[in-house]
Amino acid sequence: MTTEKSLIDSALRGWNSNVERAEQLEQEVAPGKNRLIYLWGHLAAVNDALLPLLGIGERLHPEFDGMFISNPDKSLPLTVSGQLLRTAWQEINEKLWEGFSKFSASDWAQRHTAVSEQDFEREPHRNRFTVLLGRTAHLAYHVGQAALARTKAK
Amino acid sequence: MTTEKSLIDSALRGWNSNVERAEQLEQEVAPGKNRLIYLWGHLAAVNDALLPLLGIGERLHPEFDGMFISNPDKSLPLTVSGQLLRTAWQEINEKLWEGFSKFSASDWAQRHTAVSEQDFEREPHRNRFTVLLGRTAHLAYHVGQAALARTKAK
Repeated sequence: MTTEKSLIDSALRGWNSNVERAEQLEQEVAPGKNRLIYLWGHLAAVNDALLPLLGIGERLHPEFDGMFISNPDKSLPLTVSGQLLRTAWQEINEKLWEGFSKFSASDWAQRHTAVSEQDFEREPHRNRFTVLLGRTAHLAYHVGQAALARTKAK
Repeated sequence: MTTEKSLIDSALRGWNSNVERAEQLEQEVAPGKNRLIYLWGHLAAVNDALLPLLGIGERLHPEFDGMFISNPDKSLPLTVSGQLLRTAWQEINEKLWEGFSKFSASDWAQRHTAVSEQDFEREPHRNRFTVLLGRTAHLAYHVGQAALARTKAK
């Protein structure tokens, strides 16, 4: 394995391991545990937004934003069922993974779609790989919170 | 910037940004807020253990393990002051950063010291870069918890 491939492999393993930890939230999602549904929906919405940001494709669930990104937890009634969220989560992550698998190391080092060519020349760290790592940390941040919420609900 | 350098740069930025977020815990550390002191000490202890794991050097604060790793929060009285923790945190992260800065992309793709040469042949993902990304996610995981603890303390 080349150095480049090895670095990408590390990052994709980190992504996967945090996605799997987030999926374990599913087992905790139950009526009355809105905090966990909200967190899981938030992660699904943020991951969905990666599709256009990385140039993989159109969003699958832009309608999640209102409930899970623009508004904080408990400000809107949650109208998404655990079952729907589960299906959406799987679709989003499969489509992301399909895209991730096609990127070469050099593709990862290219700019993401929210930065202009001109800005990217000045700030070459605004690339797809930085986004991948940032979103992995975002998963971990909220999985940590979910772990606490779970303990307190017991 | 080469592709390899760009990938490493992304990861080091991710590390730094999570270290900085963890440092903001410092501002919240006050008598009675033991939860935050514990989290911060835990992060310091885990980062300290990176020094030998990545082959950078000896540990600076192995004595933190008893209080912050082997025992869960609230099981032992905390005998470390916020001031001492602050100094230790800075020393640990400076020494880590010194080591990080010297690694080439190929150094990052080499095995860490807790895996044997033989095992590494079979499992080449057990490299320094995977450790760096895993510890970055570990920081994010607990920073997420600290953010919750802070909200609740208000």
